[in-house]
Amino acid sequence: MTQIRLTPLVASLPATVPFVGPETQERLRGRPFRARLGANENGFGPSPRAIAAMAAAAGEAWMYGDPENHDLKVALAHAHGCGVENVVVGEGIDGLLGTLCRMVLKPGDAVVTSEGAYPTFNFHVAGFGGVLHKAPYRNDAEDPEALLALAQQVRPKLLYIANPDNPMASHHPGAVIAAMLDHLPEGTLMVLDEAYVELAPEGTAAPVAADDPRVIRMRTFSKAHGLAGARVGYALGAAPLIAAFDKIRNHFGISRISQAGTLAALSDTTWQVYMRRLVAASRDRIAAIAADNGLSALPSATNFVAVDCGGDGAFARAVLEELTAADIFVRKPAVAPMDRCIRISCGPEAEMAALAKALPGALDRARERSR
Amino acid sequence: MTQIRLTPLVASLPATVPFVGPETQERLRGRPFRARLGANENGFGPSPRAIAAMAAAAGEAWMYGDPENHDLKVALAHAHGCGVENVVVGEGIDGLLGTLCRMVLKPGDAVVTSEGAYPTFNFHVAGFGGVLHKAPYRNDAEDPEALLALAQQVRPKLLYIANPDNPMASHHPGAVIAAMLDHLPEGTLMVLDEAYVELAPEGTAAPVAADDPRVIRMRTFSKAHGLAGARVGYALGAAPLIAAFDKIRNHFGISRISQAGTLAALSDTTWQVYMRRLVAASRDRIAAIAADNGLSALPSATNFVAVDCGGDGAFARAVLEELTAADIFVRKPAVAPMDRCIRISCGPEAEMAALAKALPGALDRARERSR
Repeated sequence: MTQIRLTPLVASLPATVPFVGPETQERLRGRPFRARLGANENGFGPSPRAIAAMAAAAGEAWMYGDPENHDLKVALAHAHGCGVENVVVGEGIDGLLGTLCRMVLKPGDAVVTSEGAYPTFNFHVAGFGGVLHKAPYRNDAEDPEALLALAQQVRPKLLYIANPDNPMASHHPGAVIAAMLDHLPEGTLMVLDEAYVELAPEGTAAPVAADDPRVIRMRTFSKAHGLAGARVGYALGAAPLIAAFDKIRNHFGISRISQAGTLAALSDTTWQVYMRRLVAASRDRIAAIAADNGLSALPSATNFVAVDCGGDGAFARAVLEELTAADIFVRKPAVAPMDRCIRISCGPEAEMAALAKALPGALDRARERSR
Repeated sequence: MTQIRLTPLVASLPATVPFVGPETQERLRGRPFRARLGANENGFGPSPRAIAAMAAAAGEAWMYGDPENHDLKVALAHAHGCGVENVVVGEGIDGLLGTLCRMVLKPGDAVVTSEGAYPTFNFHVAGFGGVLHKAPYRNDAEDPEALLALAQQVRPKLLYIANPDNPMASHHPGAVIAAMLDHLPEGTLMVLDEAYVELAPEGTAAPVAADDPRVIRMRTFSKAHGLAGARVGYALGAAPLIAAFDKIRNHFGISRISQAGTLAALSDTTWQVYMRRLVAASRDRIAAIAADNGLSALPSATNFVAVDCGGDGAFARAVLEELTAADIFVRKPAVAPMDRCIRISCGPEAEMAALAKALPGALDRARERSR
């Protein structure tokens, strides 16, 4: 009998995955959630133009999508005022992070990120044998100075920072991020994850040229554009780096329907303004629900809000479990002291009302459990 | 200025890609094709149930797809009479081949395939530093004996064979493929690409248990199911091998709309029977068009037909170029002696009529050029 001969690296990797989906939880629970507020999806949905474009494209799904993603890249280059050669489209930021790690990491190469930052980045770094070095958060935010100091020590291939941050929804002015570039060690590429930046205050997007070779910026249609299910992200970077993606990426990886939907979403600038207002209103609504229950919401530059449950990580975990039992799907940060919070995605009023109804009881039961 | 530090392996890879899409050709030509018959897409389209399911799912695209692809995997396991633990879903067979290469190949590892076989497999092997060893085709078909003899020599990690074959549309009885397993060297995994098998004669699918550890079988929704644009393929294999995909794959890589469409397509067995008949009729139609022009069509077990242009590779290339100039998109094998053929995908009568109209003139002009 033939043995399966995995590489030593892959054989050594754990079986864990970055995120368990709400569908898995629903199967385990035996019933659906009433409010899906845990994955930082955008329950307000995409532009109606995008929905119409995708519905129309369903009949064309017998054709492969354009492997160059040409029309979408042209539109993105136009939107960002850069060249098409500075844009690569991939299967979500997750897919692009995996390809990037493959492009630059050899086993043993150092990588810098923050303790408690995006786990899927860590998943891909580990998947190519990179060695993670982690700086702590400071005041519930990623700490540029600590990240740079750590980078000077370990001289990493990649330095990851998300702005705005996930899971805390905090942000730095884009100028702070741009200033970091002058202090990167030679040979370190900054991975700037701007997944949420369209929803952040003016000035949060880093004022950096798309072809700056010191940084690659990750963007997505999953958050502000409400198209998480389409699986389309993109990266902006220097042309030689962007060109290298073509050497190894899955060229036919993007659904043709998703190409049509994202192109339509990008064209609907009116909807984008409307969406920023809906999300801002929903952040306030979540903060008000928190306050009604004696909890405090942290400031948010994203489409989710970190709510401080007022205790330790175990207490916040209990609140999350009780919300889950009450059919409200939320998630929470994993690392202290941020783990005192739960993380609630913005969404339409029906979901907000369900949250408002469920939270008092969930808190009561969590407090009973912690007695 | 920071230099981009690609790994030596990625830096060494060429900039070439496995396939240039028809959209790229259309942009270069400045006008669209009249008949899209080059990419072995299925112009008859998917089940109307699948189209309806995808159109309905467009409104749900704000949600990530289930990262476990649970419902689809359960349906596939049921269809194949195997366990869910024997099924993994990926971004087309292309995506799965890439992940598989990553799982088993270290730089320098040997891999066996056929000269002229699927180039995207070769792309991924090279992308992980594998060394390709190629057996020649025999009688326009992959040669099991030559592949096994080469495998005994080089003791590869992977042995790739497609049945039915692409680009020649030839096939072996499934029993021949199954018998190969008894002669694989210790430590060689067979990669059996059955992308077209639903369209092949009865008995072409290899009679092999899904959990046989000597083989991993690749299937797709792109061909018989008419959903190339959805980007969904799957692999059947032994549970430990299938589980290893989870250690490294892009868990959120499949579009939610594609999940809905493929699940609906799988349920429509009536449509699948209808599709096999349409494709069989179209194969005969292509053969008749070839015969009308003094050319011979090779027997086909797929949704495309290799047509022998009656000359050498340069002549077939000229025919292809003249068809392209007449707005007919076809492709051709790259390696002699198969390169004497052009490869024409099955499709609806409008495309067949366009082909029939364009072929005589294309042949005349190609013959003029070769004088």
